[in-house]
Amino acid sequence: MMKLTDYSKLHKAFALIDELAAETSWPEHATPLNIRDADKKQFWPKGFSSGTRHAGIKPGSKRDLMIIKASGPASAAAVFTRNLCCAAPVTISKEHLLQPAPSIQAIVCNSGNANAATGEKGLKDARAMAEKTAEALGIGPEEVLVSSTGVIGDPLPMDKINRALDSFSAVLLEDPCTRTAEAIMTTDTFPKFFGLDISLSGGTARLCGIAKGSGMICPDMATMLAFLVTDAHIDRKTLQEMLTKANDRSFNTITVDGDTSTNDMAVLLSGPSGGVEILPGSEDAAIFHAALESLMIFLAKLIVRDGEGATKLVEILVEGAATDTDAGKAARTIANSNLVKTALHGEDANWGRIIAAAGRSGAVFDPEKVSITFDDLAILEPGYVSDFSEDRAKKILGRNSYTITVSLGNGPGKAVVRTCDLSKEYIEINGSYRT
Amino acid sequence: MMKLTDYSKLHKAFALIDELAAETSWPEHATPLNIRDADKKQFWPKGFSSGTRHAGIKPGSKRDLMIIKASGPASAAAVFTRNLCCAAPVTISKEHLLQPAPSIQAIVCNSGNANAATGEKGLKDARAMAEKTAEALGIGPEEVLVSSTGVIGDPLPMDKINRALDSFSAVLLEDPCTRTAEAIMTTDTFPKFFGLDISLSGGTARLCGIAKGSGMICPDMATMLAFLVTDAHIDRKTLQEMLTKANDRSFNTITVDGDTSTNDMAVLLSGPSGGVEILPGSEDAAIFHAALESLMIFLAKLIVRDGEGATKLVEILVEGAATDTDAGKAARTIANSNLVKTALHGEDANWGRIIAAAGRSGAVFDPEKVSITFDDLAILEPGYVSDFSEDRAKKILGRNSYTITVSLGNGPGKAVVRTCDLSKEYIEINGSYRT
Repeated sequence: MMKLTDYSKLHKAFALIDELAAETSWPEHATPLNIRDADKKQFWPKGFSSGTRHAGIKPGSKRDLMIIKASGPASAAAVFTRNLCCAAPVTISKEHLLQPAPSIQAIVCNSGNANAATGEKGLKDARAMAEKTAEALGIGPEEVLVSSTGVIGDPLPMDKINRALDSFSAVLLEDPCTRTAEAIMTTDTFPKFFGLDISLSGGTARLCGIAKGSGMICPDMATMLAFLVTDAHIDRKTLQEMLTKANDRSFNTITVDGDTSTNDMAVLLSGPSGGVEILPGSEDAAIFHAALESLMIFLAKLIVRDGEGATKLVEILVEGAATDTDAGKAARTIANSNLVKTALHGEDANWGRIIAAAGRSGAVFDPEKVSITFDDLAILEPGYVSDFSEDRAKKILGRNSYTITVSLGNGPGKAVVRTCDLSKEYIEINGSYRT
Repeated sequence: MMKLTDYSKLHKAFALIDELAAETSWPEHATPLNIRDADKKQFWPKGFSSGTRHAGIKPGSKRDLMIIKASGPASAAAVFTRNLCCAAPVTISKEHLLQPAPSIQAIVCNSGNANAATGEKGLKDARAMAEKTAEALGIGPEEVLVSSTGVIGDPLPMDKINRALDSFSAVLLEDPCTRTAEAIMTTDTFPKFFGLDISLSGGTARLCGIAKGSGMICPDMATMLAFLVTDAHIDRKTLQEMLTKANDRSFNTITVDGDTSTNDMAVLLSGPSGGVEILPGSEDAAIFHAALESLMIFLAKLIVRDGEGATKLVEILVEGAATDTDAGKAARTIANSNLVKTALHGEDANWGRIIAAAGRSGAVFDPEKVSITFDDLAILEPGYVSDFSEDRAKKILGRNSYTITVSLGNGPGKAVVRTCDLSKEYIEINGSYRT
């Protein structure tokens, strides 16, 4: 199995994750795990294990199929794409979660093929994936969540998938977090994973997550997947509330509202084997929620950092808007503007493009009151006063990550969107993805 | 003066304009002019002349200032950007047009600097440009429309502009259409101009236009300017109605609704010197309107064809939508999707990206009913049936221009948006535009 792993990608992951983790201020009670341990199967929270395969969906000898298994029925929460053309696995996973009393014990996910825009056959195939997985693990098909990512419009190669699923059984689920993250990659240049230990009144809980996504910075551009597991036991309603809220502050800050891909999905499984219990409304719940949000923001940043062809992670913070909605409009329009993103790439302090994007965003403000800073450097002051050191600006624009703050001077509204630069590599990658 | 012209760009213009004109079906009563004649000053309709200068706003020795002059008060119509941060010249031109009985005799436009996001000083400078022009031509300042295009946020170099304007006088307005179009270029790779003769009941009218814009395909990305002149005499109200309607079917089909740049402007001047008179509601008015619309669509296509780094002009036609509004949403989302645009560039028949973009556009439809054709080749049929010859698809995708038709199967709504591919050259151009 070892030959499947591309160690250069794994080492890139360790280096980038270490760098970003060091810059992160984690919430109180949350301790980041040593990321090198993610290569051991003991990294997973108690009650969870995983297995991966090279099914042959992706070319070459890469891992392209994974199962995450809970040792018993887990509490489950999920958020899904809002794209009208949602993929078959999204439909099937929703069905399984929407049962009156869902009992979820496994997630199966393949990369290399999205099983999207595949009609009736696609639904049949997604159901078959759940059934085969259930059979291999000795659980019910409705206890399996199904996920796919890759090319849209091609039928799943079910013979290959069935053959790989047949080879699974509970005892063979011995892969660590790192390899599981590897198996869900598409154009990602490194696997994305992280974990926290959380100190609660009843003991320590562990929370781990893997994610994938690059296809530019926005999940509207390519599939964003995140699978999170914790040994803490949290009731389903609280778990869903936490995931939905944390999702709004993490993965949704790298998406245009409603502009999700056909396959986007984030799942959180909790406490299959009697871990620390967290009661709704308790202080522990607040602590766990803060830790969950910080982990999801961390994974979201890893996705942006790995945006196709991206070399920089840039936070666009819009403040002083009339409302949060207005701030969000301005932040998203700036973050998605190709002209802004190419200027970020060229390390050009082109604030004119930033203000022009805000001006067409639909947010209401007086252009004369706008100010813009790059990290701590004032680039534009109210009244269109712009007198900054190009040298200092170049220094900031040369950083791997920095923040652009746009103050509209029109109220208390605020929003953050995380984006990346637009490079020639993006064109290279996407000009030839399908063929 | 001759050394200012880059003849390779002019020859590129002649070749591309010839090619596109040959593919165009012009309306009855409209005869395209021989485009090589645009290099002679007699190309302009009776009553119009133009002059250009190298003021030194742009680097090198390029033309960067132009005046179009009517021989007397013209009937004038205009449409302007809806960007909240509109540029100073837009504000001043609006003021001049909104007088109770506007009399417009000239348009002055510089390239290289947008005079946008320049505050009070910008307004003062735009007013000064109108005054200097008026002085040189012996007309009133409020008879001048002012326009600028180029970098946002830098103050206009008024000393250079004043020096150049001082050198103008009516007798020196001897430049042809070609050079006038050259003077308003920014990142355009060729000047854009065309003209029609229109047979009306009272004789022949001439209509000529120049345009600029590249900055990707969408005017939300960079300034789109168009200046049109005709010797036909049309009352102001009718002229404005015609321009607004024709604009919706031409320049607005290459823009995201409301997503205009800070400086966009299209102006139409009519009949300063007793040409054919066109009465409101007459058959002649209908004929002229059709010709105007076809010329504006032609200029719009030239802009897309010259999209920064663009190699292809692609019409996205969405039909079968519940409403025209829904069709417009889907067409614009497809046309602006970086993933679609990179696939067009890579000549990859990636219909999955097209349907995924439609799915997130907000348009309501049943994905199972969608069909997609590339020119006359069916790529996707209802029920997600896709079985086409990759060879035939490659052939179509290799063309300089083609049409992608997306039928949603949900009603009579229709919309067209014209787009181009996204290439590495776009990144090259925009990564270093300001500096």
